[in-house]
Amino acid sequence: MSETGTAPGACSEQAGPLDAWLRDRRERREEAGLRRRLRTLPGRCVDLASNDYLGLSRDPGVVAAAAGALAEHGTGARASRLVTGTLGLHEHLERELCELTGQPAALAFSSGYAANTGVLTALGDADTLIVSDAHVHASLVDGARLSRSPVKIARHSDVAHVAQLLEERSEARAVVIVESVYSVWGDHAPLAELAEVCRAQDALLLVDEAHGIGVAGRGRGLVHGLGLAGSPHVAMTVTLSKALGAQGGAVLGSPALREHLVNTARPFIFDTALAPTSAAAAAEAARIVRTSPELTEALHQRARLVASTLGIPRADAAVQSVPVATPELAVRAAELLRSRGVAVGCFRPPSVPDGISRLRITAPANMELHELSAVLEVVREVLGDVAQAG
Amino acid sequence: MSETGTAPGACSEQAGPLDAWLRDRRERREEAGLRRRLRTLPGRCVDLASNDYLGLSRDPGVVAAAAGALAEHGTGARASRLVTGTLGLHEHLERELCELTGQPAALAFSSGYAANTGVLTALGDADTLIVSDAHVHASLVDGARLSRSPVKIARHSDVAHVAQLLEERSEARAVVIVESVYSVWGDHAPLAELAEVCRAQDALLLVDEAHGIGVAGRGRGLVHGLGLAGSPHVAMTVTLSKALGAQGGAVLGSPALREHLVNTARPFIFDTALAPTSAAAAAEAARIVRTSPELTEALHQRARLVASTLGIPRADAAVQSVPVATPELAVRAAELLRSRGVAVGCFRPPSVPDGISRLRITAPANMELHELSAVLEVVREVLGDVAQAG
Repeated sequence: MSETGTAPGACSEQAGPLDAWLRDRRERREEAGLRRRLRTLPGRCVDLASNDYLGLSRDPGVVAAAAGALAEHGTGARASRLVTGTLGLHEHLERELCELTGQPAALAFSSGYAANTGVLTALGDADTLIVSDAHVHASLVDGARLSRSPVKIARHSDVAHVAQLLEERSEARAVVIVESVYSVWGDHAPLAELAEVCRAQDALLLVDEAHGIGVAGRGRGLVHGLGLAGSPHVAMTVTLSKALGAQGGAVLGSPALREHLVNTARPFIFDTALAPTSAAAAAEAARIVRTSPELTEALHQRARLVASTLGIPRADAAVQSVPVATPELAVRAAELLRSRGVAVGCFRPPSVPDGISRLRITAPANMELHELSAVLEVVREVLGDVAQAG
Repeated sequence: MSETGTAPGACSEQAGPLDAWLRDRRERREEAGLRRRLRTLPGRCVDLASNDYLGLSRDPGVVAAAAGALAEHGTGARASRLVTGTLGLHEHLERELCELTGQPAALAFSSGYAANTGVLTALGDADTLIVSDAHVHASLVDGARLSRSPVKIARHSDVAHVAQLLEERSEARAVVIVESVYSVWGDHAPLAELAEVCRAQDALLLVDEAHGIGVAGRGRGLVHGLGLAGSPHVAMTVTLSKALGAQGGAVLGSPALREHLVNTARPFIFDTALAPTSAAAAAEAARIVRTSPELTEALHQRARLVASTLGIPRADAAVQSVPVATPELAVRAAELLRSRGVAVGCFRPPSVPDGISRLRITAPANMELHELSAVLEVVREVLGDVAQAG
């Protein structure tokens, strides 16, 4: 539970140039009840907060793949992919991701964040309009800002608004950015309709499947589930650190898109290649997800139990979320749960699109149902206590 | 040597919305001789191109640390650091980085790229001027663009120009961004002078030690070597994927800076925590670098041999670079060397600050001197052949 890295500084008496400003910012966060602290999970805590939806980060086959890569290649890739960092296991990973998602080509990045900023900076320019759904992830927002493209924000999952923005554009090209499954509300994007609009308007639909892989489309993502895989108007990004249990990200689409990224995506070119252990683990996890749809079914079974026990509308997603009146009450509920051995997530501003704080609960596919039932009773009790006290 | 991910697409007959534009871009690259391809290193190749300067990615102790983390925590950190992703080994890593560099606090990111964009987006705003050295890395450039700060470019390592830009500023705060050791020229930044200017002008000097850790200051970085560690006017970033042989990055500075980053650095908040294997490996590597200055001395001994054998001015850095007349000739030399079993790097536009293409040669600390001598003879021969043919 300790805070880290706060060893006393050699020069702690002297004032730093930003000290007053940093102090002011911290005080504002404290007043707003929004200060975040880092701490480790106590040993005997049930983790209902992770994104390891299928429990693959501890799967024996996935761990063995990482151990094999460690023995063969060591702990790092040692250089950028463009220098001598490309290993056979990066190519293997990319083939497995293509197999899983049905996309023709893939390029791995060192994080999902880097994949999103990388693809947008590589595709963007003054003559390419980016139309962004209002709820997309911070990494897509940052990528759009880095792209040098004009950016228009579409109302969340409003297909007509996207169509209008594309129709009114003066730019030669356009990219529409959405997520397949949004993590806070757990809602699915209207991908079939969006793909049709993009086809009609000659735009590229870029779908972030961070919360779709392992979850939607029998684990192969919502794009695949809707029969849109391989469509020339659809490209996607994935993260390797959620359902695939490792670290990293990837962009999937046409071979021409991949070739363009290799040459122009700055967070690809100027970054060390993904670590061998992470690449090997994610490749094996992708193979398991593709060949074991029963894992994804087990995840949904647990999500249904979470929603029914807590009396919340069931989201068709791994994350189920429970609205709480204020950020302070959400934090208090999460603290009480932690003191009783249950870790849940806490969505607070600025990580929520609507200002509503929530507890965030995910029951991984490999958790025993009787254990989950017992834990959910604790959650129900604490939520009741907090609501009463609030 | 195969290209990856180019499996035939299901819909390869249909045209994608960006196809014509992607083709046009590819043709321009080909005409300029700047097309990049990915390929794996053949099995029996001597690698003079990696950033694993000290050979630590295969050090038995570093590999054992990663194996221990894999056995204990599995293949991924499973969540953001702010949710349940913070492990004891992230705290251990941050303490080891503080010990190595002499900074009071550290925060790990999933890549050096993310550390640089993260710290700048967290510190930047309309009332904070960023003064950027003209030669800084792509990640610092991207971070400055994302920061919403006004940005001024200072001539490379021109202390008077930095002072002038700081003096003329109307913004309340200022951050000066430089690298300690620049990778292309191998030159050192005038850090002592820059720190003095920053102290006088109440600005923060942010030093990227990507190529300084393991190399300068007896391995502890140039900031430490110059006695600037812990100064309130100096903060730094490091990468864990070069001399430390793993993956990831970190920001080091005051505890107040760290607390601010935890709350506001988007590539920290909205990213999965660094994989356990990478965190554990980097922590052990940092300990080894701190306690084994003879490793860094062995690196410099090899760098001197590279420079003297090839007849180039010796850079006080791990990377030694050999200017070549054109990008095409640089590529041809690298290809010839590869066919003779020697991998070297190739700096070409847009990765060079001055438009001059170069071969990039690094002999790791753990390479036997007699092997290096033999390999350098091959390099000398090929360079001679190419110069004559060009």
